[in-house]
Amino acid sequence: MPKTFVIAQGGGPTAVINQTLAGAVAEIERRYPDARILGARHGVRGVRDGDYVDFSDVPPARMRAIGNTPGAALGSTRDKPDAAYCEQVLKGLQKINADAFMYIGGNDTSGTQQILTDAAGGSMAFVHAPKTIDNDLMENDHTPGFISAGEFVAGAFQSVDLDFRALPGIYVGIVMGRHAGFLTAAAAAWRDDEDDGPHLIYVPERPFSTARFIDDVKRTMDKYKRCVVAVSEGVTTEDGKSLVESIVGADKVERDAHGNVKLSGSDLNRAFETALANGLPGKRARVDALGYMPRGYIGAINATDAREAYEAGQYAIQVAEEGGGSVALKYEGGKTVMRKVPLSAVAAKTRHMPEDFLAADGTHLAQPGIDYFKRLIPRKYEVGRPFV
Amino acid sequence: MPKTFVIAQGGGPTAVINQTLAGAVAEIERRYPDARILGARHGVRGVRDGDYVDFSDVPPARMRAIGNTPGAALGSTRDKPDAAYCEQVLKGLQKINADAFMYIGGNDTSGTQQILTDAAGGSMAFVHAPKTIDNDLMENDHTPGFISAGEFVAGAFQSVDLDFRALPGIYVGIVMGRHAGFLTAAAAAWRDDEDDGPHLIYVPERPFSTARFIDDVKRTMDKYKRCVVAVSEGVTTEDGKSLVESIVGADKVERDAHGNVKLSGSDLNRAFETALANGLPGKRARVDALGYMPRGYIGAINATDAREAYEAGQYAIQVAEEGGGSVALKYEGGKTVMRKVPLSAVAAKTRHMPEDFLAADGTHLAQPGIDYFKRLIPRKYEVGRPFV
Repeated sequence: MPKTFVIAQGGGPTAVINQTLAGAVAEIERRYPDARILGARHGVRGVRDGDYVDFSDVPPARMRAIGNTPGAALGSTRDKPDAAYCEQVLKGLQKINADAFMYIGGNDTSGTQQILTDAAGGSMAFVHAPKTIDNDLMENDHTPGFISAGEFVAGAFQSVDLDFRALPGIYVGIVMGRHAGFLTAAAAAWRDDEDDGPHLIYVPERPFSTARFIDDVKRTMDKYKRCVVAVSEGVTTEDGKSLVESIVGADKVERDAHGNVKLSGSDLNRAFETALANGLPGKRARVDALGYMPRGYIGAINATDAREAYEAGQYAIQVAEEGGGSVALKYEGGKTVMRKVPLSAVAAKTRHMPEDFLAADGTHLAQPGIDYFKRLIPRKYEVGRPFV
Repeated sequence: MPKTFVIAQGGGPTAVINQTLAGAVAEIERRYPDARILGARHGVRGVRDGDYVDFSDVPPARMRAIGNTPGAALGSTRDKPDAAYCEQVLKGLQKINADAFMYIGGNDTSGTQQILTDAAGGSMAFVHAPKTIDNDLMENDHTPGFISAGEFVAGAFQSVDLDFRALPGIYVGIVMGRHAGFLTAAAAAWRDDEDDGPHLIYVPERPFSTARFIDDVKRTMDKYKRCVVAVSEGVTTEDGKSLVESIVGADKVERDAHGNVKLSGSDLNRAFETALANGLPGKRARVDALGYMPRGYIGAINATDAREAYEAGQYAIQVAEEGGGSVALKYEGGKTVMRKVPLSAVAAKTRHMPEDFLAADGTHLAQPGIDYFKRLIPRKYEVGRPFV
């Protein structure tokens, strides 16, 4: 009987998650020409509800175009299924006689695959293909989606720094990242000279203090007459609370269906605006969130990232053949290679930035961090040095 | 005696303002090999204070690199000189025996050149070279800097729309633009299908009503299950006040040195967040400002824009030779051409979006607007149609 594969996408979209989908579909068609390949709409929700795209109806040219398109072409979901929800998902898969379920996503997605694996008892293969702009998956040197996002962030801060050279002041750019600071730190990937921005970075891995932040900005303004700051939306105060929760209060802060604090939004912007207005009165200051741009800006899709994401999709089918697991991107012998790792090594865990990526003050990259980001996100644009 | 040229840059930087500088310097060197070419740092401030770069010290390779670099390489200023300040600027120019002063900028900059022309009484040539992402200069079909900014905005909204197809909700993106809505309207330049975002645009040319906005969003959510909105920071309520002033109150709103209300910032973000939370409770909504990205993101420099900006710089030298004036980009016979226009036709005036660019409801482009934006900002990226 021909095999049946189900593919879904979970969590936040990225610039290249559709490459992983395209790579998987192409590899299934190559290995199993008779296979039925179904895409579930909006992640596990589509599996539960039987809402599928049949890829045999999709012409190859459209699949290629979709691969090059940011977003999540199947739709995504923030659902984090518990055991009961997973039971429904499993029933959905059994109903269509699925042989393998491949779920493209981050740590929550791999967690779902772990639960399903345990519940299914070996009756089908569950594969997790990595995807996240947060770069926070265990076992991975880096994750598909991160390089493009990092390239956008590096270019954004390079550009804003040029703007603030021309019209001096303080700029605070808020970058996505709840627990891991990789994406925020990527802001510094293209710094060359000591006076290049971002001059300060603040990541969730180090406790944030508003008083210290103001001191840091003051010192930078004295030195360079401008100050460009990259800060993670997920920075936390000494007591372990997110900054926005510390400011707004645990009872007033907005939360999502999972009880997670809504990090970005005007509360966080205002917190920085107020801190700067009080700490450096009269100085021109601007606070903006980069928002969704890093994870899907169509003008910043990195070619290496796109290729690796496609290969991760292809490799996921081999992992399915071997009974399931998680695809990990390892850096070996000077290049990125795909390896199978157990789902349990990735599921529901978070990889933080290594301690030695940051200097002792926590606001600058140290050499291992610089080396890592410069390797992953090589400088893309040459700039002429301004006269100011 | 060899001629002396002074060049300066004013107002907000753009992705291509340095091309205009590079074009002017190259044209002066070609026409007058012995000329002295000085760049004033931070606009008229540098002229007043005698703070110059001598371009004879700048190697051609660096000038080329600077041309390709966003920002304003000479530094810029928000100073809007009055008659007394202009007197000091004129003295500064006379002190170095300047034959011509070329000032690259928007309507304020051309206003300064008008005052200087009147004060100098024909003793030297004053030239205004156009630059603004707002696209709001009279006499111009479009302005250098606008196409790159518009391309960023079009790509940003195309990308966010893909993101919100995957994870439905409401997105409000706030775009720079105090009086003219061109840049916000450019968000719709790459829409193809009726359900493509942005689904709604709000510009300063039409009065803004929060109640109508909520109705518009509700209707869009019912139809497409998502709603992507592009809004100008300068939208004004029926009474002619900026939205942010209407919300915060005239006494509490932040103002700059010229008394202009600070439009973007957490107040405006919060106004939209609050309106959506009250008007569509429980719906996922996200409000972000695109901030500085459109005017200088290094990954979105449009080649046509760069070329035209360079040519505007070259042409400005011809205008200087002819005694001064403003360079205007006209659209004639299917192409963009440079023309000299009187400073008085541009100075301190604002060009608004033509009435017929918008549909009667004010939230969509009408055909003349679609034609204009599609001509200026051709679609850059092909996308594959998602399955949701």
